[in-house]
Amino acid sequence: MASEFVLYSYFRSSASYRVRIALNLKNIPFDYRPVHLLNNGGEQHTDEYKKVNPSREVPTLVHNGKPLGQSLAIIDYLDRVKPEPRLFPEDAYERAQVIQACEIVNSGVQPLHNLRVLDLLQKRFGSDQSGRDAWTVHWIEYGMKSLETFLAPRAGLHCFGDKISAADCFVIPHLTNADRFKVSIDPYPTLSRLKGVAAKIEAFVKASPDAQPDSPQAR
Amino acid sequence: MASEFVLYSYFRSSASYRVRIALNLKNIPFDYRPVHLLNNGGEQHTDEYKKVNPSREVPTLVHNGKPLGQSLAIIDYLDRVKPEPRLFPEDAYERAQVIQACEIVNSGVQPLHNLRVLDLLQKRFGSDQSGRDAWTVHWIEYGMKSLETFLAPRAGLHCFGDKISAADCFVIPHLTNADRFKVSIDPYPTLSRLKGVAAKIEAFVKASPDAQPDSPQAR
Repeated sequence: MASEFVLYSYFRSSASYRVRIALNLKNIPFDYRPVHLLNNGGEQHTDEYKKVNPSREVPTLVHNGKPLGQSLAIIDYLDRVKPEPRLFPEDAYERAQVIQACEIVNSGVQPLHNLRVLDLLQKRFGSDQSGRDAWTVHWIEYGMKSLETFLAPRAGLHCFGDKISAADCFVIPHLTNADRFKVSIDPYPTLSRLKGVAAKIEAFVKASPDAQPDSPQAR
Repeated sequence: MASEFVLYSYFRSSASYRVRIALNLKNIPFDYRPVHLLNNGGEQHTDEYKKVNPSREVPTLVHNGKPLGQSLAIIDYLDRVKPEPRLFPEDAYERAQVIQACEIVNSGVQPLHNLRVLDLLQKRFGSDQSGRDAWTVHWIEYGMKSLETFLAPRAGLHCFGDKISAADCFVIPHLTNADRFKVSIDPYPTLSRLKGVAAKIEAFVKASPDAQPDSPQAR
């Protein structure tokens, strides 16, 4: 029997990682369908995949046959169909601040260093690997500065006080990206604390890139 | 007496434009505070502005003294504090699809050609004006293709059927950007129709860049 939830994901995609965290926090079982963004010219470009995601991006969540793209849209949707535990607060202003934190990552920095942008840097400006890495590091640090400033007065164990919210689903993958590009977290005491706490929570650990079936680390 | 709503905005910022449309659609009066992103080294970098927006971006909406950044967070907030007319549908899946359309613009393409990215292209890769314009055009076209594919089976007079939604607040400013960079809308029949309809609706016209007090066109 087909699962109620199917997730098209790439282990290293931080947008996929956000949705995996949300699914785990809500204890929602799902079928994992890997979409390799590099192999075979990018599996997101197949005709079959374009039918579920016309933007040819991961993740796509399929719920009872209905596809949805964009991590924020998916997590907001999950909060409505499986409300416990809530990831967006009820209060309008608290809720909006959680979305603001999500967007600092989602629209503010992560798009600037995804694969298709790095490809275009190479194609248009002849940027080599080290130039592309420096570009990525620039935006990761930009994001960390914004997040530290925004979250310092708001965070407790998690981004907003001691309660996990959608913001944690966005911020933790950003910090994993920082790790991957050897950006030090030391100048950011709030982010360091959030990272340490999340590292001990199974929903975050199970969602991490290296724990996915399509990771080269998973053997 | 201070207004209930204050909007920090830059006439040409498409994220500010989205929020101006939403405020107009809901008939919410607001104080307009221009933040010039180029003059004086960028007015978004002043200490005063950083207090309302730690990411140093426009727009910021201040409601009864409480600041909020990020266009999607602001429009979702407005939909809660001033629910009529609703910009996000009640139904969970319809709502998520509206957010998905917003994000195709908000995180999918617009961040890739904003001012700070173009500045870094110049600084890191010595990109001249024509190289930066070609970069911008690439992403505007990328967004138009994604939007046309996603919206064609969903749109009527507006992005989702004949009812205005938050998606229209995001898509119309994207089409205005296309105009500015002389990207032809002709290959996109759905987007052409949406643009023609919105051009006759006062809430969209009043929100356009050239209609703002800080536009050089406003004399």
